Amino acid sequence: MHTKTNNITGILFDHNRIARIGLPEAVFCEGKSKQALRVLLQESSLKDGQPTLFTRLDEDVFASMPKDLIKKYNYHPLSRTAFTACLPGPEKGQVAIVSAGTADGSVTWEAARTLQYLGIKTRVYEDNGVAGLWRLTENLDNIQKAEVIIVVAGMDAALASVMGGLTGKPLFAVPTSVGYGMAQQGQAALTSMLVSCAPGVAVLNIDNGYGAACAAARVINLINKT
Amino acid sequence: MHTKTNNITGILFDHNRIARIGLPEAVFCEGKSKQALRVLLQESSLKDGQPTLFTRLDEDVFASMPKDLIKKYNYHPLSRTAFTACLPGPEKGQVAIVSAGTADGSVTWEAARTLQYLGIKTRVYEDNGVAGLWRLTENLDNIQKAEVIIVVAGMDAALASVMGGLTGKPLFAVPTSVGYGMAQQGQAALTSMLVSCAPGVAVLNIDNGYGAACAAARVINLINKT
Amino acid sequence: MHTKTNNITGILFDHNRIARIGLPEAVFCEGKSKQALRVLLQESSLKDGQPTLFTRLDEDVFASMPKDLIKKYNYHPLSRTAFTACLPGPEKGQVAIVSAGTADGSVTWEAARTLQYLGIKTRVYEDNGVAGLWRLTENLDNIQKAEVIIVVAGMDAALASVMGGLTGKPLFAVPTSVGYGMAQQGQAALTSMLVSCAPGVAVLNIDNGYGAACAAARVINLINKT
Amino acid sequence: MHTKTNNITGILFDHNRIARIGLPEAVFCEGKSKQALRVLLQESSLKDGQPTLFTRLDEDVFASMPKDLIKKYNYHPLSRTAFTACLPGPEKGQVAIVSAGTADGSVTWEAARTLQYLGIKTRVYEDNGVAGLWRLTENLDNIQKAEVIIVVAGMDAALASVMGGLTGKPLFAVPTSVGYGMAQQGQAALTSMLVSCAPGVAVLNIDNGYGAACAAARVINLINKT
Amino acid sequence: MHTKTNNITGILFDHNRIARIGLPEAVFCEGKSKQALRVLLQESSLKDGQPTLFTRLDEDVFASMPKDLIKKYNYHPLSRTAFTACLPGPEKGQVAIVSAGTADGSVTWEAARTLQYLGIKTRVYEDNGVAGLWRLTENLDNIQKAEVIIVVAGMDAALASVMGGLTGKPLFAVPTSVGYGMAQQGQAALTSMLVSCAPGVAVLNIDNGYGAACAAARVINLINKT
Amino acid sequence: MHTKTNNITGILFDHNRIARIGLPEAVFCEGKSKQALRVLLQESSLKDGQPTLFTRLDEDVFASMPKDLIKKYNYHPLSRTAFTACLPGPEKGQVAIVSAGTADGSVTWEAARTLQYLGIKTRVYEDNGVAGLWRLTENLDNIQKAEVIIVVAGMDAALASVMGGLTGKPLFAVPTSVGYGMAQQGQAALTSMLVSCAPGVAVLNIDNGYGAACAAARVINLINKT
Amino acid sequence: MHTKTNNITGILFDHNRIARIGLPEAVFCEGKSKQALRVLLQESSLKDGQPTLFTRLDEDVFASMPKDLIKKYNYHPLSRTAFTACLPGPEKGQVAIVSAGTADGSVTWEAARTLQYLGIKTRVYEDNGVAGLWRLTENLDNIQKAEVIIVVAGMDAALASVMGGLTGKPLFAVPTSVGYGMAQQGQAALTSMLVSCAPGVAVLNIDNGYGAACAAARVINLINKT
Amino acid sequence: MHTKTNNITGILFDHNRIARIGLPEAVFCEGKSKQALRVLLQESSLKDGQPTLFTRLDEDVFASMPKDLIKKYNYHPLSRTAFTACLPGPEKGQVAIVSAGTADGSVTWEAARTLQYLGIKTRVYEDNGVAGLWRLTENLDNIQKAEVIIVVAGMDAALASVMGGLTGKPLFAVPTSVGYGMAQQGQAALTSMLVSCAPGVAVLNIDNGYGAACAAARVINLINKT
Repeated sequence: MHTKTNNITGILFDHNRIARIGLPEAVFCEGKSKQALRVLLQESSLKDGQPTLFTRLDEDVFASMPKDLIKKYNYHPLSRTAFTACLPGPEKGQVAIVSAGTADGSVTWEAARTLQYLGIKTRVYEDNGVAGLWRLTENLDNIQKAEVIIVVAGMDAALASVMGGLTGKPLFAVPTSVGYGMAQQGQAALTSMLVSCAPGVAVLNIDNGYGAACAAARVINLINKT
Repeated sequence: MHTKTNNITGILFDHNRIARIGLPEAVFCEGKSKQALRVLLQESSLKDGQPTLFTRLDEDVFASMPKDLIKKYNYHPLSRTAFTACLPGPEKGQVAIVSAGTADGSVTWEAARTLQYLGIKTRVYEDNGVAGLWRLTENLDNIQKAEVIIVVAGMDAALASVMGGLTGKPLFAVPTSVGYGMAQQGQAALTSMLVSCAPGVAVLNIDNGYGAACAAARVINLINKT
Repeated sequence: MHTKTNNITGILFDHNRIARIGLPEAVFCEGKSKQALRVLLQESSLKDGQPTLFTRLDEDVFASMPKDLIKKYNYHPLSRTAFTACLPGPEKGQVAIVSAGTADGSVTWEAARTLQYLGIKTRVYEDNGVAGLWRLTENLDNIQKAEVIIVVAGMDAALASVMGGLTGKPLFAVPTSVGYGMAQQGQAALTSMLVSCAPGVAVLNIDNGYGAACAAARVINLINKT
Repeated sequence: MHTKTNNITGILFDHNRIARIGLPEAVFCEGKSKQALRVLLQESSLKDGQPTLFTRLDEDVFASMPKDLIKKYNYHPLSRTAFTACLPGPEKGQVAIVSAGTADGSVTWEAARTLQYLGIKTRVYEDNGVAGLWRLTENLDNIQKAEVIIVVAGMDAALASVMGGLTGKPLFAVPTSVGYGMAQQGQAALTSMLVSCAPGVAVLNIDNGYGAACAAARVINLINKT
Repeated sequence: MHTKTNNITGILFDHNRIARIGLPEAVFCEGKSKQALRVLLQESSLKDGQPTLFTRLDEDVFASMPKDLIKKYNYHPLSRTAFTACLPGPEKGQVAIVSAGTADGSVTWEAARTLQYLGIKTRVYEDNGVAGLWRLTENLDNIQKAEVIIVVAGMDAALASVMGGLTGKPLFAVPTSVGYGMAQQGQAALTSMLVSCAPGVAVLNIDNGYGAACAAARVINLINKT
Repeated sequence: MHTKTNNITGILFDHNRIARIGLPEAVFCEGKSKQALRVLLQESSLKDGQPTLFTRLDEDVFASMPKDLIKKYNYHPLSRTAFTACLPGPEKGQVAIVSAGTADGSVTWEAARTLQYLGIKTRVYEDNGVAGLWRLTENLDNIQKAEVIIVVAGMDAALASVMGGLTGKPLFAVPTSVGYGMAQQGQAALTSMLVSCAPGVAVLNIDNGYGAACAAARVINLINKT
Repeated sequence: MHTKTNNITGILFDHNRIARIGLPEAVFCEGKSKQALRVLLQESSLKDGQPTLFTRLDEDVFASMPKDLIKKYNYHPLSRTAFTACLPGPEKGQVAIVSAGTADGSVTWEAARTLQYLGIKTRVYEDNGVAGLWRLTENLDNIQKAEVIIVVAGMDAALASVMGGLTGKPLFAVPTSVGYGMAQQGQAALTSMLVSCAPGVAVLNIDNGYGAACAAARVINLINKT
Repeated sequence: MHTKTNNITGILFDHNRIARIGLPEAVFCEGKSKQALRVLLQESSLKDGQPTLFTRLDEDVFASMPKDLIKKYNYHPLSRTAFTACLPGPEKGQVAIVSAGTADGSVTWEAARTLQYLGIKTRVYEDNGVAGLWRLTENLDNIQKAEVIIVVAGMDAALASVMGGLTGKPLFAVPTSVGYGMAQQGQAALTSMLVSCAPGVAVLNIDNGYGAACAAARVINLINKT
């Protein structure tokens, strides 16, 4: 039985993805063995040209890596992301990430860290749940200054609809798995966002902060090429 | 084969329900034959003491009834409700029904008409969807004057959460089957209301305007006995 | 990358919620780190004016807090709730909480403890499942003395319908995740309650004892303002 | 292309089923063409030895059959059942069918008519929904005289649990597709019955009155062989 | 805050259930604290008149009980059941439990042990999955000697339909949560059994071996009173 | 606004599909307008080289086409398929289609007609439901002579598992939407087939007789190239 | 009973929405009465300043309107859209709409017509399903010239992932309800798009061509303000 | 209480399955006790004639077995499979397994190892996800040389449709539980494969690498008998 395996991790990187679509491949760490992750972290720390983004990298797993490897990485526990450096090039754009609650933090910051790694300026506004509308109202003028807005919310995800009715900027909504019972691991938030009464709210998978950052980056990249 | 059938309609009315719980039994017309409905409408028009509420009575079906029967009834097409008279006794209470859109009209008005029949003062505020928040803001002071608030909304049902964060009054939320795709015949609105970020929002079945009116009536009845 | 973070816990409290809707914000502890909880428990124990309710605070987590902090709190393991003191003001109202079985205990007592914290008199009636109807019958007269009734039940949740047919009081039903197989973590109980054959039964999210207490408090607060 | 087709209807009857398991094959008419049904009704009216039960035979379809065929059949519109004669042999057993409401009528009577056809004595008790418990209480002594009890209920199906706690007789529960919204075409009733808090309640498919009758017949046949 | 609590376990036993319906209440141990279980096991071991059945009692939990308590109990690890003695009275009936595979063992034996406790003769036939039909064929004559048949199967649950077409005896089918992927924790087996092409197959909740035994006991008790 | 539309039907045929994968593109008629279908039927009747298969073409729709067009087509009402001629080339292979009941006829014959059109010999065995196992047993020797077996079944779909345990031939299973209640438009049959206890049963979409024929054709084509 | 109704249609237009977010409110016609639609079409045809977009306006309904009203409208049957004129202002942007098949036509053209109405240049590429990859490959260079890409696909929706891996442009994916069986009215396509292996694919509700156009317009508007 | 148990493991092997259908029974280890597995591994290591395949045998469990038993087995951790030897006979056939990503590795290699054990030549092509189409294009010529193709993919499973449009070989698709959120433990991939736009793609249960190998073996066995 033969197989085409390129290295110990078994991964065949799509290295020309960044040239093709402006977004480099990232390493989704959940479900990968510590051995594979160590090899990948090692490889990525050597390459000068293209640093790699690691997502869903648990604090315990990262802490179990060799000390010299840990030292080379910029690791952020809440978002479970790591990279040695951001992508080269001048910082660009402006993205506002607006979340409903601090419980949405890991998704909020996965998006924020991905944007940082992609070289895009980002500002995070947490705890704007609509049960206390005044919080969103207070932040609104600043949020509106961004070019792209990402809304992160779990449970009823009503924030996405309210935000969508207040801004004309491109708006990406990420449901989170926050909540219990009929929140159904984020399905309530997802369906709520998909059937939003505000026009043109585009939705990502549950807890997909990385994907929202990529969607925003597609817009920011477009503007900066225009 | 024997059976205990009391009349041609086969229904064994729970006539002492109003004495027991303050809410009379109503006739849910959907799925009943025209013949059975005619008998029931006939019977109800004779009884002086206790008029009956008919719900989900389609306009076509009602129009096919004998002319003299039609004359005796107060029929409201949008809500599909009919009764010969409201329950006896002085008008009481104050309920505000706040809906997200006119598409929620049949549910909104089923609730309104049921409350009218139960002798409870009601005011309806339509088209307050959160995609245009200013509409709710304009109505808020008037809505707050009510003793009980009913929110009727389909799709993302974000109105329930926003309303729940703005009022301390008892608040009953009715999801509607308005919408398409992932609105899933009202399930998106239902789950959104059940996992609302506002505290103490109590929820009824999809399209159950009648039930919301009964829930509100339980509160109004309590106050008027206190 | 900048962000507006007000303290180490990242939470932007909606402190004026109690003034706005009569219900103070509570801290939902599930999913929060021990570090964040310690800060929140510390802060709350200092404030004289407004004690905070902590819900879903596991016994193990609470036991791991500093001794002097533990001492200041009234903690109830079954309901997983903690507070330093109840809200100030005279005790008011009367709520009856009727549960189907002892397995529903954690939800039953979350509701009871929340009401206690809100300053509302509460009486709990456990183990009234309809498979042994005599138990409910025996308690019925006492239950009827309350102003608001909360029914807590899992599995088939038949208790909500039976109770709803016996009382005219405002009735809030909380499904619990008790059961296995097709109980589906409380979805069977939830749907059963939503389609109850008794009129005006209003439903909360699965296991949401806190929400039922808030819904009841909205009614009690209304009466006490009237 | 060859195929083994035995007659114009394409059906290969399992005629020895009655010898094998005591229950003859029935013809489920839904989805069959009028042409096929005419042939089957014709064939069945000729056979002296073994009359056939036709279920889900709509009134319109039956009325469109030749007059002389219609004359030979005992047709019951509500249950949508037809047969030329009951199975030969002495009447046996005693089954009580207890339904929650008249809306459950078509399923209730499908069960009753199937039992009649199988030569089993049956008594039907309609409109015993638990929102008016006194109705069931009044009928209870008579119901308990039966050897087997069938409960037919839609929506919350709470009747199955209440009945199951009151009787030790074999009890078969049939959920019906009555209701709207979260009743979900009978799934709420089905799950409610499956997770009943009463022990030993056995459940049939939604609207399967025929199946409940067969399950009851298996018990009655066992007793009459004993 | 007052409550009616009868003992440390908080359980209000329905002791007259056996007189009312011939089936004593059992203790479902899953989710109960070790402390509560110890009290219940202690109480039950003292009572002479009515031994109690404990179900879903994990081996580890049972092993952690006091030695002298363990000694008094007949414990069966696979079925996770315990009792000090069977119900008094002569052994009666004959039930055959037919399972599809050994993976269904815990459910199969929960049913078998419950029947043993109820004083009903039982014979278990394991590993009769229809992928190797000869196994069922070999056992068929013996299975047919029973008065009631219980089928236990997971995954496709095809055994229930095959068995239902081969026997006229009362047949109760229990789906098990065996399988992965689309087996969906027993939902595939459950739906397969509910829509069985064999007539009169009555179904219990997923993994509910106890319920199947109770359903069978209802039939056996009926015969023995006849 | 410009668009690349190649003809009035808007379809861009993948004409080289047959060269690429040995299976020509077919026209799925459901949802297409009569006007578009007339153009497509017209075009296909002109082409000599490659006749087209039309599936899901309702009898009423076909009957409304111009007489001269109807004449050119071989139409089969039960399967709702039409073609002017089979694909050129010698007949090959041998496929057995085994169905559970005549209610599965439209799917069974869609598969049979597709195979006929593809030039593959086919034999259909209907009404082999496992509730009467002897029917399958009688046909087994003949079925086993085929090179590929297609099983078509709705409801519990137990036939797929039984068949899968009796033959080592490639076996494709097609669930049908036959049944009611928990049959859930074929989802019960689908899940039952996917979790079959027999090894190597491969499954197609609900009612996808066309797909099963294509899967079988892939095997037959492989053999005839070998 | 009083209510705040502004006109016969009951709609309270959010007229300042276009000023607020750059997207005018549209009229969703599904479920509205012919009477209400006539009034709305009448009103909209009078207003010079702001023409209105009507979506989901069935051909039969539109044809039943007064002749003089019909004349004033630009109606497109496949997309079921109507407007008297496009929004004023210079044409801008470039959007490519890429669909998998002609069956997706009504959604594809709802998006195209909405963009036309919004004054945005659009090019439609139909029938690019990945089962014949060469079709997409041929169109790719032209598609890449657009600033924003909308993918419309039903069934497996594989086109969204393939497209997402080939372009770096902002990409909005609309699932359609095309397909049968497990396509589940577009849920298969929706979930497939949400879990796409390509980064940054943002998703709209099933069949929501209007929403995709609005999402694209948010980006185009951003560019034209920059 | 008697039962027919043949050995300590309780399993009644279907040893003549290989004679009957050419595929030997395998031992699915998940959920079996270590004690039962030790007996089964012991027994299998003694039998010369027919080695047994063990699937879903976790590394930890295998490592806990006696040293001398471990030595006799060919164990593969990623696929969690073990056997002492492959089935006797000459190697035959050629199967290509094409996976979307390395995260699908355990399912990919379960299929590969099962085929190896069955004596069928296999070649594995990993990491061909369609987000980087060039990877599949590069491998296509080699993949096409196989007689049967297995596609293994999670998330959107778009690879199955793309592959199905490029090859005419028998193609079996296995969805994997890779992904999060709406990937729903493989249900997104499963439905995507079932509604594939490519004709004749046959689907196995989620994560069922073993089943795909058996389906492929049925084809290979057929060819080698022809």
